[in-house]
Amino acid sequence: MTRWALKLEYDGTGFVGWQRQVNGTSVQEILETAASRLNRGDPVLSIVAGRTDAGVHAEAQVAHIDLPDGYRPEKVRDALNFHMKPHPVVVLYAAAVADNFNARFDANRRSYRYRILNRRSRPALLLNRVWHVAAGLDADAMHAAAQSLLGRHDFTSFRAASCQAKSPLRTLDRLEVSRDGDLVTIVAEARSFLHHQVRNMVGTLRLIGDGTWQVERMATALASRNRAAAGPTAPADGLTLTGVGYPLDPFG
Amino acid sequence: MTRWALKLEYDGTGFVGWQRQVNGTSVQEILETAASRLNRGDPVLSIVAGRTDAGVHAEAQVAHIDLPDGYRPEKVRDALNFHMKPHPVVVLYAAAVADNFNARFDANRRSYRYRILNRRSRPALLLNRVWHVAAGLDADAMHAAAQSLLGRHDFTSFRAASCQAKSPLRTLDRLEVSRDGDLVTIVAEARSFLHHQVRNMVGTLRLIGDGTWQVERMATALASRNRAAAGPTAPADGLTLTGVGYPLDPFG
Repeated sequence: MTRWALKLEYDGTGFVGWQRQVNGTSVQEILETAASRLNRGDPVLSIVAGRTDAGVHAEAQVAHIDLPDGYRPEKVRDALNFHMKPHPVVVLYAAAVADNFNARFDANRRSYRYRILNRRSRPALLLNRVWHVAAGLDADAMHAAAQSLLGRHDFTSFRAASCQAKSPLRTLDRLEVSRDGDLVTIVAEARSFLHHQVRNMVGTLRLIGDGTWQVERMATALASRNRAAAGPTAPADGLTLTGVGYPLDPFG
Repeated sequence: MTRWALKLEYDGTGFVGWQRQVNGTSVQEILETAASRLNRGDPVLSIVAGRTDAGVHAEAQVAHIDLPDGYRPEKVRDALNFHMKPHPVVVLYAAAVADNFNARFDANRRSYRYRILNRRSRPALLLNRVWHVAAGLDADAMHAAAQSLLGRHDFTSFRAASCQAKSPLRTLDRLEVSRDGDLVTIVAEARSFLHHQVRNMVGTLRLIGDGTWQVERMATALASRNRAAAGPTAPADGLTLTGVGYPLDPFG
């Protein structure tokens, strides 16, 4: 068998998330069903870098699968794309990798983008792609507050109750907030994130942005190590996994 | 009655276009039905700057309607947005204008953006927002060819058979082609366009981009004043009306 790293783009709107669930269609199921067609109909298991939640999108998710030897990269990409039709899931690149490559455990950077449409009118063109916040947001204050989360911390305050990670310690490398017209964009980067960490940080930044909280309260929320001390979870729609990094880029 | 200029955003995907048709839902119908709720249920007629085709989007379409006196601009915008739910059509701004303002005939600039997703994999996140062209496109060659269309010309070669304009003469002020990663973007500006003119220019530029045509053939196609001498009509999905200009900006 040959191990393949796949770079994937998908619209998370209609899915229950990456992972298989009994109550709906998952991106994993779409990929693995297509991959089985390249494996004489036998099941193919995939391992993914970021197990995105329902409604979360990906511009550059990375997964790995094993397929019988002999396929060319273009064939793997095009055949998977053909069999995944008409679902909004596509393989952008396929690269043969070492047998011990692991899309999840080898990944040493995850990048996310969260977008807020900050205007009075609900979204039309960006429906399902943004969080609509009508109240005016101060992106500069949000950015200032975000900086107090950088570095290695116990992120219990921003961790979902369902989070299965052993440790709440994470190192946040980047959390930048900027405005372009009606769009407020938050960029987050870390080796890895706790479950719902990005959405919980965004939900809290919104409280800073609309003036409910002072900037300083972000540091207090972090220090309290208590989920109740931070803001609510921002909706999934606004979140996109924009990249996964590896010590050695499999697509390089 | 008070005349209102409305700036509108919509996702054209599910519509038969701006104009009312018997065979489906139009943006005009969505707007006028909502507007009648602000007119004691009586019909309201709208006049629009750009009668976009089925599948064509708008970031900043402009229309005008007449409503009973006494509404504040915020009320007009919010009430129309409420009544247009859940359709992907929203009013961004409403501005009271002079009784003789005409969204269509006063407009002296229309701006469009056309986007081509130029990669092997079909679109997932940009589904219905781009024309997918798998063959590699030379955006520089397309831009060079586009420049030969600038200025005042007889655009018969790029005019739909269904075009109702009296004259095929138009002045094209801007036609720029640029690439950003997999996206090739074409920006077009003129006082007004013939029916399908932008999509026919884009369909022809694609022939230049993929090497089917030499750059020089664009000028020949224009000079021949013959629809058959130009390329096919590009799909509606990639086209967005991005702005309408007036001698005096009603939203200024």
